[in-house]
Amino acid sequence: MRRGFGLHFPRIWRVKLLTILYIIGITAEGMTGALAAGRHNMDWFGVLFIACVTALGGGSIRDVLFGMYPLTWVAHPEYLAIICISALLTMKIPYFVVKFERTFLLLDALGLAVFSVIGARVGLDLHPSGVMAITGAIITGIFGGILRDIFCARIPLVFQKELYASVALLVGGLYVAFYFINTHYRILSENSIILICIAVGFSARLIAIRYHLGLPTFKFQN
Amino acid sequence: MRRGFGLHFPRIWRVKLLTILYIIGITAEGMTGALAAGRHNMDWFGVLFIACVTALGGGSIRDVLFGMYPLTWVAHPEYLAIICISALLTMKIPYFVVKFERTFLLLDALGLAVFSVIGARVGLDLHPSGVMAITGAIITGIFGGILRDIFCARIPLVFQKELYASVALLVGGLYVAFYFINTHYRILSENSIILICIAVGFSARLIAIRYHLGLPTFKFQN
Amino acid sequence: MRRGFGLHFPRIWRVKLLTILYIIGITAEGMTGALAAGRHNMDWFGVLFIACVTALGGGSIRDVLFGMYPLTWVAHPEYLAIICISALLTMKIPYFVVKFERTFLLLDALGLAVFSVIGARVGLDLHPSGVMAITGAIITGIFGGILRDIFCARIPLVFQKELYASVALLVGGLYVAFYFINTHYRILSENSIILICIAVGFSARLIAIRYHLGLPTFKFQN
Repeated sequence: MRRGFGLHFPRIWRVKLLTILYIIGITAEGMTGALAAGRHNMDWFGVLFIACVTALGGGSIRDVLFGMYPLTWVAHPEYLAIICISALLTMKIPYFVVKFERTFLLLDALGLAVFSVIGARVGLDLHPSGVMAITGAIITGIFGGILRDIFCARIPLVFQKELYASVALLVGGLYVAFYFINTHYRILSENSIILICIAVGFSARLIAIRYHLGLPTFKFQN
Repeated sequence: MRRGFGLHFPRIWRVKLLTILYIIGITAEGMTGALAAGRHNMDWFGVLFIACVTALGGGSIRDVLFGMYPLTWVAHPEYLAIICISALLTMKIPYFVVKFERTFLLLDALGLAVFSVIGARVGLDLHPSGVMAITGAIITGIFGGILRDIFCARIPLVFQKELYASVALLVGGLYVAFYFINTHYRILSENSIILICIAVGFSARLIAIRYHLGLPTFKFQN
Repeated sequence: MRRGFGLHFPRIWRVKLLTILYIIGITAEGMTGALAAGRHNMDWFGVLFIACVTALGGGSIRDVLFGMYPLTWVAHPEYLAIICISALLTMKIPYFVVKFERTFLLLDALGLAVFSVIGARVGLDLHPSGVMAITGAIITGIFGGILRDIFCARIPLVFQKELYASVALLVGGLYVAFYFINTHYRILSENSIILICIAVGFSARLIAIRYHLGLPTFKFQN
């Protein structure tokens, strides 16, 4: 039931497209992490650390919970380097990053959609029902941000702001649906499914930000 | 030393009774998680997430630390569904839950005792000394609440309130003692040992709540 | 790729010296954990828990991320006992510990250096580039303190105070450098390399404390 890297790696990564999108995703997430660290006056090391945790935390938690070793960044330390460089750039030109906040939000939304698709693909093998694919999408999509906020000692934003986890849920559900349809009818290539899921997730996130859509909150006082 | 699921699952779960008690436990813990999330005005997703973390966090941390894969909820996604339903019910009728706070405390105490017994059973196989059984009982019993409090950015209650971890320690120690006695004298069935340990843990927790028993605290200022 | 304990344990621990230094390290870290818990008025159990997390957290996170089971304290529960005893002593005589703060800082610096060397040794086997050795050194050196601070609901000190993670980085880098030099020229015994790395790390940390050296911080406000 536990599978080595050699077994699941090809399935996920043979799709070059997804690798490129993944790198864009971790770069964007690393930058959000660096900015969050800067808001708490952390030193350089703290900035690099929070950037790595934000970018790789979701995938790492997923692989630890699912027992899939080695983790992506252990097998590919170059991802650590990419994130550190993007964090160092953010430190040098934070106001540049903020000025292009719109671009930045786009990249973050793209990262969320890409992470969710990758998580869904990994989780699909774990349980035939597809429940783990959706769980994998959510964990991969949101845990980077959750860890970032915990290391900054504040309540994770993901539980309070615009649709974020819901987008991961949507992407995961869509990927599972396409997968099951495809096992019977083979209408779409794997790359097409990936692109559709990412496009839907990306759009859903942007619409949520634009119109301040959020889930209803649950307020409770004794 | 690392054992697959197929190996340790039967030993734990062939006891139907323990499964039923476990489901009661995760339902109660999911409800405490949902209420805690409501106190921090989280959205629906946050409520479900905190509920799952509270109910399943202890067992997950234990299995990750002990290297036992797959985790319970990966092999049995239906537990995720049970917890989500109980959290959604709590959101609909929070004042009902509070009104029956007494019942609720009983269920939480039962959950603690059941989780501790399960943790002790899992840990017993890891080290012949029984130390890991007690450690397993404590981790399983308390880590759900610790994670709940960390995700809500507050100091874990378990370190400050009435006897909680101590109850897990007591249950774990008792289970180990019975186990060692039983290997020599076979006086009790496995089910009897489980029931005695749960009864003792359950009572100890209720007595601690009733009389506000707690461990002495350690106050230190420079 | 995943390796059992039997494989990497001898390589790390056949060096008796490192074991002795490791025990000094966890004792010192356990004491810092106990004092931090005391500052937050935790009960006895909380103090023991925070002490264990501070002393063993770094190594545990490293082994979980690297997929190396069983964890050190699962195979050697006696380390748990050593830490609990040192935490109980700290509770009895906190002012003694504070009075000898200087000695205490020395032990903590020694612990950091020792943990970093152990982490570098473990990480070296994971990736031929040596990047994982440095990552392993950093994770092992700093994660105990990070977890201690998260459980106390504050921003990890390690991101803000004098050089700490940088010392782990330095020790890890030095160990890797010596290792690569040694594969070609065999000029130094393994024990000598360990001692040099620890001495350098120890001195670097003390110099950083003495002269309040720290990394530049990154301040950012929208």
